[in-house]
Amino acid sequence: MKLIFKRDALLAGINITAKAIPSKTTMSILECILIDASAGEIKLTGSDTDLGIETIVTGDILERGRIALDARLFSEIIRKLPEGEATVTIISDDRFNTTIECENSLFTIPGRDGEEFAYLPYIERDQYICLSQFTLKEVIRQTIFSTAPNDSNKMMGGELLEVKDNILKVVSLDGHRISIRNIQLKDHYNDIKVIVPGKTLSEVSKILSGDNEREVLIYFSRNHILFEFDDTIVVSRLLEGEYFKIDHMLSSDYETRVKVNKRDFMDNIDRSIILIRDSDRKPIILNIEDNNVNMKVKSAFGSMNADMTAHKSGRDIMIAFNPKFLIDALRVIDDEEVELYMMNPKSPCYIKDEESSYIYLILPVNFIA
Amino acid sequence: MKLIFKRDALLAGINITAKAIPSKTTMSILECILIDASAGEIKLTGSDTDLGIETIVTGDILERGRIALDARLFSEIIRKLPEGEATVTIISDDRFNTTIECENSLFTIPGRDGEEFAYLPYIERDQYICLSQFTLKEVIRQTIFSTAPNDSNKMMGGELLEVKDNILKVVSLDGHRISIRNIQLKDHYNDIKVIVPGKTLSEVSKILSGDNEREVLIYFSRNHILFEFDDTIVVSRLLEGEYFKIDHMLSSDYETRVKVNKRDFMDNIDRSIILIRDSDRKPIILNIEDNNVNMKVKSAFGSMNADMTAHKSGRDIMIAFNPKFLIDALRVIDDEEVELYMMNPKSPCYIKDEESSYIYLILPVNFIA
Repeated sequence: MKLIFKRDALLAGINITAKAIPSKTTMSILECILIDASAGEIKLTGSDTDLGIETIVTGDILERGRIALDARLFSEIIRKLPEGEATVTIISDDRFNTTIECENSLFTIPGRDGEEFAYLPYIERDQYICLSQFTLKEVIRQTIFSTAPNDSNKMMGGELLEVKDNILKVVSLDGHRISIRNIQLKDHYNDIKVIVPGKTLSEVSKILSGDNEREVLIYFSRNHILFEFDDTIVVSRLLEGEYFKIDHMLSSDYETRVKVNKRDFMDNIDRSIILIRDSDRKPIILNIEDNNVNMKVKSAFGSMNADMTAHKSGRDIMIAFNPKFLIDALRVIDDEEVELYMMNPKSPCYIKDEESSYIYLILPVNFIA
Repeated sequence: MKLIFKRDALLAGINITAKAIPSKTTMSILECILIDASAGEIKLTGSDTDLGIETIVTGDILERGRIALDARLFSEIIRKLPEGEATVTIISDDRFNTTIECENSLFTIPGRDGEEFAYLPYIERDQYICLSQFTLKEVIRQTIFSTAPNDSNKMMGGELLEVKDNILKVVSLDGHRISIRNIQLKDHYNDIKVIVPGKTLSEVSKILSGDNEREVLIYFSRNHILFEFDDTIVVSRLLEGEYFKIDHMLSSDYETRVKVNKRDFMDNIDRSIILIRDSDRKPIILNIEDNNVNMKVKSAFGSMNADMTAHKSGRDIMIAFNPKFLIDALRVIDDEEVELYMMNPKSPCYIKDEESSYIYLILPVNFIA
C-alpha cells in the first residue's frame, strides 16, 4: 500500500475515527485505526464492538491496500509532523511494516493485517430523519448530563429518541431527574422509538461541526443507529428493551409558578456549591415568598444566604434541591428567564417553557428549615 | 473587624498569598490566609513554615482587626462573587465568626484568631540586588527545570544565586545536566552566594508580572531571602550548606562544534519522543557528519530517522542523549540558532552562546549504534 496525504486532512480524519477507539480493551486490534485504500477511496475506521466510526480522507492512492495501525502512535506521529500542507507518505509492505514519511523525517512502525479488523455492520437505509448538525449537537448537550452511565439499570445509560410526525423527542433520566427536549423537524417521518447509548451520542456530538447549514442523516434499523454527515458515518448498537414510561411521571398541575432571571439564579446556586463537599450532601433551600426567592445553604464549612427577585403566582413554598441538579438544567437552557412549576416540597419541580420545547424535572430533597 | 474591598482587588491579593499555602499540612492554621487590618493598611499573608507571602490590598478599614480564614474557602467565595467593581464587606466578631457580604449574597464562615498565625521573619535590608520582574521571571523559567526537588541530595532541589560585581549567576543541576545563566545587572553589588529552594523561585515566578519596566528588589540575610515587588513581599528560608563546585565540571575544550536551527532541532526531538515511553528509556542518537545531523530513535514501538542540515567544525561524532534533556534546554533558549560543543561520546555536551550568557551542560548516554 502506498498513499499520499496532506498532513492536516489526515490528522482531521484520525481525530474523528479515534473517538471510537476504546481507552481500555483486551482485544488489541481494537486499539488500531484501519486505513482501507483497497477500493478507489481512502477510508479510516475506528471501532469498539458497540460503536464504529468511518471517515473518508482525501489522498492519493499510488498502490491500493489496507493496514491497521496503533491509533495512539499513529495519531501522535501525524500530529507532530509539520502543520499545514506538508505531504505525508504512508507505505506498508507485505509484512505490514509501515513507514510514515514527511519532509526529512521517517517513522517506521509495525502495522497489522487489515483483515483482522471487523467491518462496520451493514445498515438498511430506509428509516431515517434529517436535521442540522447544530441542532443535533445542541440536543445532545442539553440532555446527556442526566444519563447515568454506571447505573445497574442499563436504560439509564441511554437516551430515548422518539420520532412522531415532525417532532423528535429526546429523553434522558437518572433516578433524580428527567430531561426532555422536543425538536421540530422540517419533514414528517414514520414513527421511530429507539434507545441510544449515551456514549455514542457524546462521541457523535464531539465530531459534529455545530454548523446550522450542514445536515446529519440519522438512519434506524432494528438493532443499530447510523449517523451520516460530512464524510463520516457513525454506527452504534442500540440498547435493547423498553424505556421508562415517562408520561406517567409528568404532570402539568402546580401550586406555585415562579419566574426568575436565569443568570442570577445560576450564579447564586454556583456560589452555594462552595460550601458543599461531596461527603456531606447539603441541599440548597429555596424559600419562595411573594416576589422574592431566598436561597440558603448551611454546611460544616459555613452558611450562605442570598435573595433574588422573582415573579410568583400561586402559593408560597419552601423546597430544597441538590444544587448540582438545578445548575445542570439551567446551564443548558438558553432563555434569559426560566419558569419553575412546583406542587409541594415532596413533588417534582418542573423547569419548562410554554411550548414544552424543554422540560426538566427535578426531584426535591428533604431538608431541615 | 470590618473591611470593605473591591472584589477584583481582593481576589488578586488572595491569589498572590495563596501561592504560599501548603497543599498538605498537619498544622491547620497554615491552611489559612491572615487578614491583618490592625494597623493603617490591610495585609494578606499566607505561609508554610519555609515560605511566606505578604501583600497589601486596597480597601477601607471601618474597624481594625485581624482574622485568619481558610484559604481555599475564602478564595472560592471571593472568586464566585460578581466580577469587577462589586463591593465586598468582611466583618468578624469576637468569636471569629466572619461574614462576607456582596450584593444580595451573604456568607458566614468560621474564622480563627489572627494571633495563632506566625508572622514572617524580620529580614535586615542591607544586602540586596535590583532587577526587572521580566528578567527574574525569565531566569527562573530558564533554569528551574533542571532542579531535582525529590532528590536525596537537598542541594539539587535549590538554585545557586551568585552575585559578583554586576553579574548575577543562576545555577541549577540534577545528576544529568547543569543549567547556568549569567545576567548583567545595572549596578555593582557586594558578593553574594546563596542557595534558594526551587519551590520558592517557582512560586515567585508565578506572581511576577513579567513586566520589563517594573522592578524586584531581592534582599539577602544569613538564612533568608526576601523578594519585594509591587505591593508584595515573599520571604523564604535559604538552603544551608555548600553548593556543588560547578567550575570543576565545566570545560571549554571541544572536538566538534555544530550550529543548528533551534526550531528544526526541537521539532525533530519532539517527534522522536512519541516512540519513547517512560518504561524504556531509549536515547536519541545524533550522527553528525559533515554538514548533516542525522537523528535516530529505535524502540519497541518503532523507529524514527530524521536529517537536518548543520554547520559543523571539527570532527564527526556519533553521540546519544535523553531527548527530554535536550528539549528542556532548547525550549528556554531564545536564539534562532544554537551551538553544541562536544568532546567525545562519553563527555558532556555544552549548548552555549558566545558570551556564555547561557550554558546548558547535558551528559550523553550509552547507545548501540
